[in-house]
Amino acid sequence: MAHHEFSPTTYYNTMGTHPPALHIEPGDSVSTTAVDARGFDHENVERAGRPNPQTGPIYVNGAEAGDTLVLQLHAVVPNRRMGWTTGRLAPNVLDFGYEANFSDEVELAWWDVDVEAGTVTLTEPQNRLTGQPLPLKPMLGTVGVAPDIGEAISTMTSAAHGGNMDYIGIKPGVTVYLPVFADGGLFFLGDGHALQGDGEMDGTGVEISMDVRFSLDLIKGKTIGWPRAEDDTYLMACGNHRPLDQAVQHATTEMVSWLETDYGLTTREAHMLLGRFVEYDVGNMFDPAYTMVCKVKKAVLAELGFAPSDG
Amino acid sequence: MAHHEFSPTTYYNTMGTHPPALHIEPGDSVSTTAVDARGFDHENVERAGRPNPQTGPIYVNGAEAGDTLVLQLHAVVPNRRMGWTTGRLAPNVLDFGYEANFSDEVELAWWDVDVEAGTVTLTEPQNRLTGQPLPLKPMLGTVGVAPDIGEAISTMTSAAHGGNMDYIGIKPGVTVYLPVFADGGLFFLGDGHALQGDGEMDGTGVEISMDVRFSLDLIKGKTIGWPRAEDDTYLMACGNHRPLDQAVQHATTEMVSWLETDYGLTTREAHMLLGRFVEYDVGNMFDPAYTMVCKVKKAVLAELGFAPSDG
Amino acid sequence: MAHHEFSPTTYYNTMGTHPPALHIEPGDSVSTTAVDARGFDHENVERAGRPNPQTGPIYVNGAEAGDTLVLQLHAVVPNRRMGWTTGRLAPNVLDFGYEANFSDEVELAWWDVDVEAGTVTLTEPQNRLTGQPLPLKPMLGTVGVAPDIGEAISTMTSAAHGGNMDYIGIKPGVTVYLPVFADGGLFFLGDGHALQGDGEMDGTGVEISMDVRFSLDLIKGKTIGWPRAEDDTYLMACGNHRPLDQAVQHATTEMVSWLETDYGLTTREAHMLLGRFVEYDVGNMFDPAYTMVCKVKKAVLAELGFAPSDG
Amino acid sequence: MAHHEFSPTTYYNTMGTHPPALHIEPGDSVSTTAVDARGFDHENVERAGRPNPQTGPIYVNGAEAGDTLVLQLHAVVPNRRMGWTTGRLAPNVLDFGYEANFSDEVELAWWDVDVEAGTVTLTEPQNRLTGQPLPLKPMLGTVGVAPDIGEAISTMTSAAHGGNMDYIGIKPGVTVYLPVFADGGLFFLGDGHALQGDGEMDGTGVEISMDVRFSLDLIKGKTIGWPRAEDDTYLMACGNHRPLDQAVQHATTEMVSWLETDYGLTTREAHMLLGRFVEYDVGNMFDPAYTMVCKVKKAVLAELGFAPSDG
Repeated sequence: MAHHEFSPTTYYNTMGTHPPALHIEPGDSVSTTAVDARGFDHENVERAGRPNPQTGPIYVNGAEAGDTLVLQLHAVVPNRRMGWTTGRLAPNVLDFGYEANFSDEVELAWWDVDVEAGTVTLTEPQNRLTGQPLPLKPMLGTVGVAPDIGEAISTMTSAAHGGNMDYIGIKPGVTVYLPVFADGGLFFLGDGHALQGDGEMDGTGVEISMDVRFSLDLIKGKTIGWPRAEDDTYLMACGNHRPLDQAVQHATTEMVSWLETDYGLTTREAHMLLGRFVEYDVGNMFDPAYTMVCKVKKAVLAELGFAPSDG
Repeated sequence: MAHHEFSPTTYYNTMGTHPPALHIEPGDSVSTTAVDARGFDHENVERAGRPNPQTGPIYVNGAEAGDTLVLQLHAVVPNRRMGWTTGRLAPNVLDFGYEANFSDEVELAWWDVDVEAGTVTLTEPQNRLTGQPLPLKPMLGTVGVAPDIGEAISTMTSAAHGGNMDYIGIKPGVTVYLPVFADGGLFFLGDGHALQGDGEMDGTGVEISMDVRFSLDLIKGKTIGWPRAEDDTYLMACGNHRPLDQAVQHATTEMVSWLETDYGLTTREAHMLLGRFVEYDVGNMFDPAYTMVCKVKKAVLAELGFAPSDG
Repeated sequence: MAHHEFSPTTYYNTMGTHPPALHIEPGDSVSTTAVDARGFDHENVERAGRPNPQTGPIYVNGAEAGDTLVLQLHAVVPNRRMGWTTGRLAPNVLDFGYEANFSDEVELAWWDVDVEAGTVTLTEPQNRLTGQPLPLKPMLGTVGVAPDIGEAISTMTSAAHGGNMDYIGIKPGVTVYLPVFADGGLFFLGDGHALQGDGEMDGTGVEISMDVRFSLDLIKGKTIGWPRAEDDTYLMACGNHRPLDQAVQHATTEMVSWLETDYGLTTREAHMLLGRFVEYDVGNMFDPAYTMVCKVKKAVLAELGFAPSDG
Repeated sequence: MAHHEFSPTTYYNTMGTHPPALHIEPGDSVSTTAVDARGFDHENVERAGRPNPQTGPIYVNGAEAGDTLVLQLHAVVPNRRMGWTTGRLAPNVLDFGYEANFSDEVELAWWDVDVEAGTVTLTEPQNRLTGQPLPLKPMLGTVGVAPDIGEAISTMTSAAHGGNMDYIGIKPGVTVYLPVFADGGLFFLGDGHALQGDGEMDGTGVEISMDVRFSLDLIKGKTIGWPRAEDDTYLMACGNHRPLDQAVQHATTEMVSWLETDYGLTTREAHMLLGRFVEYDVGNMFDPAYTMVCKVKKAVLAELGFAPSDG
């Protein structure tokens, strides 16, 4: 279980089978950095082009198509003070024909991010949100791997390989499971957010560069269809597509499969349990693909006597 | 502020401009009952046809098109022991081509609902969920009013008038705001659920007949576009349509309008606040129209100094 | 086979179980008129409110739920010179965030409709379309019947009962099949268009009042799921919903059923034939429900030896 | 204007910035071959893996991001006798919950393609379609270029770069305009179909290997947003996404832009003309992205006096 200090020098705007920037063993941990969504680093120096330049890829020795990569996200910490957002909700989340009557013009809004205080504070433009400290909730907008059949998919969007899911559940403490399609898995991360609502409805999440610490492990021979995640409270299955209806279909089907395969539920039990207890979160609603997350409380499973097969 | 004990004798399968079953004054409270989604009452006697037969309509004196009806839901209490569900998730929430491999056939599943114990327990079919007490969480699948221009809309679906939103937030303690389109508003309720996951993904919510207690008030001259709700924690705006994307559009636009009109935010402030703090819940995903709920924590508004104009 | 001259005095903005305006026998023909989408008649006098006021309902003696109503549309003839449209495509058919840069303001555009010359000519506003005669192609935006379970559905939208499908195939010479849900079927028509592109993308079809001649017949005991139509060239099955994907699902499933039931194809033959020969038309893309039409050339069926069972 | 005889030896399952297989000058023509969707060539020998292996990429000297590549498709001729299809419509084009009752099992159906006779004839399975000659209508399911920002997109799907649009309009005689994103454009083609209905609703188009002859030219400095095409009759703008609604949005917006930029219409004229004359075709409805085609008859433009700026 080695630890790697990794300083990226090359960034990618697609997740694909790019040359590995780091090779590690399963179980190793990594400390690294992520530039912001427009490629600016901790000193606000532009290091990479848009969109969402990624740190990586990290090659996990032994990973092969059909395996599952296990990401444990230990720390996601803003490494500069200044973050930014747009100042408006995206047209696709508002009624057709909606016209916003703004009294000011805002190209970008600027936020002061104070890690010690745990706050995010609007500095520009000037309105009644300005100067009011909001809670810092750091997360990663993008995590993912190289997709299947050699695709290289824009970091503006998401699919079965992960990508730009902008899900507030991808935060310190979470374990994410990603399907491996290419040798080494080829893990990418980026698009740090200091504070984001559901869905990244304004297309931004207080965009900021980050220090990131995580470990990567491998489950050999275990095949999953879509990104999964779990924390102390929830199992979470992600589906990425448009419309949201189809993202729900993928996420729900993946959760049924998860309950069957890992928790030993019959199909009937899985359907009946979800009918009573399923929850959904909205991930990204800004990209070409939207994200929905199908969730089940682990306590519900435990109380009913369903335990993970390897537990 | 009179209280009315109302025993329904006629039920409706549409929300429309039907003859009022009860006239009340704004502020009055009502105790009544709701049969289950197939029309069976507290003695399991069939009283009405499908789908979702409604109690009502209740005519609120003075209500006119352009007003807002205010429902305070005080109590929703199952009034018999037996509830039922389907035993399978609906095809529209699972992947195209998904085929469930059930080892048993289930037309309906039966549940024992124990109000005193606060539990819901599967009695049939037999599997590892059977006999395990689950938490009772009573709610109403349908609340609504007569729609605009004399429409009579099936209680299987939902629109701007409310209807079959199957949202777990429509539970005791909630205040619901409904747009008035017809004289008297003409309020309906029904489709009681003892325990439902997000989205009513299996098309049922442990369907059961209910005792219901509520009050109805009126805000004269206040016009809203979509059903709104609030409880101690959240403001909630509902959007009803397909696909979910469009339900999100309606719900989000309604929330922007709510923040502007009632809480005095500028358009810019509303957009920026939602970008940081918006949350979404999935309501019904079974009907012709799906439901999405756009939420904001009232504490967020309060901490930022935004108070309701009448507060 | 009587012929009825019917002058409507009442108009409806919903299709529902309204009091019959005319009773006829199956096979009877009717000559009547339709006001335009805003309720203006042949003298441009306002006779009814919006939206899309309907002539009818016509009660066909003997029609019961589960039957099919057969509309033969003989003549649809504009009965005044002046028609109108909007001057812009609807926001929902253009990219999210699209902003039109119009150099003029147009609330409504006005067209001169010359039945003898067979032309439709823009008179206002002034641009390079103005004064240029376009071909007159009269059609009905709405045909339908009273829906199931007593619903009364706005004439702004469409569903299994027909309604505002705005399909250019609903023109003189077509035969339309409508599912009967209520006693007498209760047939409605309205929303005449002088010239419309696919989808009614600007929300209008050169809106004009019409003289209409048609006959209504009945197929007892024949149940269909969605409106069907045929002319000399095509079988056409209509599906109405959002998104278009779902309208396609309804229309295609109805066409499979049609080929199986009436033309005697096995399910396999129906699937394989559609795979090679299916065509689609876009109906209304402006309303709450969109319309897609699934088509098969009758010549294809004939050449393969598939004939209608009653042919 | 050289002519190149090009025999592919490498095939690609993504459209991306792969090493050019051929360099040509703008205006040059090419004769080549395309293997079928599963990689089998004219002798039915497997030459490449799935999905939809592509011939190319062809580097057009001088092509740069922001240019437009002009494909003239001269000939698409099946080069073997045997083609294949699935035997069933895809689940995503049929109602949720639809279950086909097939009386036989069909993994693949086989067709005899006779170029001289101009026919496509089912040979297996046996049913009433078998042995009946259908008209040969050869086309290419995929044409496209390397996408933007170095993406490599699966040939199972489509986007702004073209790809698997499965549009029956991509047939001999058509001119296709593709946006250039990468140096040389990097043109790909494949997925030959002998006979396909709208939408490739069964996921196949009588899949067969093809001899293809075409020329590629360049319009320097002309930037388009989505693939465009024209033949003697129509201008066609393609939009690729899900749901179909969004594909319509992209296609319609691109057509508005085309009319403005190349035919000199004002925005108002473009909107008003499309309102009267727009037509839509359904391309692929099987892939992750669906395709809609927005069409206008060139005769309509000519009669109104609108001519292309370079004409």
